[in-house]
Amino acid sequence: MSLLVVGSVAFDSIQTPHGKAERVLGGAATHFSLAASFFTSVRLVAVVGEDFTEEEEQVFRARGVDIGGIAREKGKSFFWAGAYGDNVNEAQTLDTQLGVFSSFNPQLPAKYKDSPYVFLANIDPVLQVSVRRQLNGARFVGGDTMNYWINGSRPQLGEMLKLVDALLINDHEAKMLAQDPNLARAAKKILAMGPKTLVIKHGEYGATAFFQDGAFGAGGHPFRAPTLPLETVVDPTGAGDSFAGGFMGYIASRGEINREVFKKAMFYGGVMGSFAVESFGTARMQTLTRAEIEERFNLFCELTHIE
Amino acid sequence: MSLLVVGSVAFDSIQTPHGKAERVLGGAATHFSLAASFFTSVRLVAVVGEDFTEEEEQVFRARGVDIGGIAREKGKSFFWAGAYGDNVNEAQTLDTQLGVFSSFNPQLPAKYKDSPYVFLANIDPVLQVSVRRQLNGARFVGGDTMNYWINGSRPQLGEMLKLVDALLINDHEAKMLAQDPNLARAAKKILAMGPKTLVIKHGEYGATAFFQDGAFGAGGHPFRAPTLPLETVVDPTGAGDSFAGGFMGYIASRGEINREVFKKAMFYGGVMGSFAVESFGTARMQTLTRAEIEERFNLFCELTHIE
Repeated sequence: MSLLVVGSVAFDSIQTPHGKAERVLGGAATHFSLAASFFTSVRLVAVVGEDFTEEEEQVFRARGVDIGGIAREKGKSFFWAGAYGDNVNEAQTLDTQLGVFSSFNPQLPAKYKDSPYVFLANIDPVLQVSVRRQLNGARFVGGDTMNYWINGSRPQLGEMLKLVDALLINDHEAKMLAQDPNLARAAKKILAMGPKTLVIKHGEYGATAFFQDGAFGAGGHPFRAPTLPLETVVDPTGAGDSFAGGFMGYIASRGEINREVFKKAMFYGGVMGSFAVESFGTARMQTLTRAEIEERFNLFCELTHIE
Repeated sequence: MSLLVVGSVAFDSIQTPHGKAERVLGGAATHFSLAASFFTSVRLVAVVGEDFTEEEEQVFRARGVDIGGIAREKGKSFFWAGAYGDNVNEAQTLDTQLGVFSSFNPQLPAKYKDSPYVFLANIDPVLQVSVRRQLNGARFVGGDTMNYWINGSRPQLGEMLKLVDALLINDHEAKMLAQDPNLARAAKKILAMGPKTLVIKHGEYGATAFFQDGAFGAGGHPFRAPTLPLETVVDPTGAGDSFAGGFMGYIASRGEINREVFKKAMFYGGVMGSFAVESFGTARMQTLTRAEIEERFNLFCELTHIE
């Protein structure tokens, strides 16, 4: 069933120990939608500038992503330049040019308003709340945020947290949001802020889902999904967004939402994140096949399962 | 079957965000042997000073640990004082007094020389090699080391690595030993140094086992075991040694060594580590029951398994 994502489409210039890439297609909603497109039909709402061309459109079209919700404005698309050292979990920002993204005010095409599955990628929580309130029929809504909003827009973020079924953030963001250095306690505090489920991403160590009591029949116990120990991380950019795309995409592909669906969604999230880092930008998603996804899903199962 | 451990028995003074403990029983071989004692019979070789009394002996005896191999010397036992802040994976050393441990030269009682399972806890690799060479009949030998030996005794450590079936170290130590910041690549380089298996402990994120091709029928794929996200980590000291004790103890309790046994051993290692941190010193191991261990083992399975 249709999965709507609202967020950034951007150009990234990236340096890693494996090389450099100049102005490759990036942005949270880009990585999310391409990863999710392997599981379900995806609708994308974003804003781009005049530098977004037929070439970039084709990347989405080739994956069947509906880009009718991409607004085009005069000016330049969001641009980010960053560098990674040996720690693939920490990017150093070299340059940020918001461009047309600075006045992003997402407009939902009328035909998108019936979207049963929604992902509010990392944008101003005021906009996330505004989008969420236009989607009263949504069955399951996921959301992301970042340090900038946790520090600067806590009341607005608090509103957003009450309107999502799943919040997907990383360890550092979870500890900052809860103001608690212990991850399990932080999770409990964040669940008390509203989201029925909290998925904390641990980078190369996988991810853990925490559930409100009774949420989705999931019971009180957390669930931990692995990632593959990778010898080559070419470009970590977008790994978290690709995780979210695999996670939400798999959930949207299933009729029912229960603990078992959640678990598999966590595994598929890890799988998509592990592919995303194999190339710069969106390159790996452009060549990936569903068969490769299933093969790695089975490997992830083998990585963790005991008889 | 009998599991021999050679290493330190010490007194620790520990500060954590949950309180303080003065001169509690500690040391790698202590934490290891108590954890392993829930799975198999354990023989302990160590050295202590005159401050080691009937009270400490009783802690081992209550768990059935054979302490006939503990040498008593004039002077004081190894003493360590440390503090933990919010990051439970990083201890700040406040004081170290080697005492009688500075001249530790492990003597194996004759009746220990048939030990089929052996763990060389973190001591000078020269001593580890010397002990290993007296145990030609050993079926499976595990070993540990630390930054101090990786930096200062690389050739001696290289000898030790050729003589162990499993090396159990943490992320930081693995990256330092391999001189590679990527964990998967570091693992491959360490396996090339000799050990048939490498178990890398990730603290609160669990542990990953890497296998030489064909080792123990384990195949080339790694295996990842979880830990429980704990709300209260009272004292992280000894968590890694308790992991090793659960891991080696479970292996020693089984006749055959294969991939499935390894996997369960990794889970039991995580279980024992998760109990160890619930109290200062050895307190939790002194009250723990096998039923509690099985209950948590099942929880760990539930934490990671998908249908």
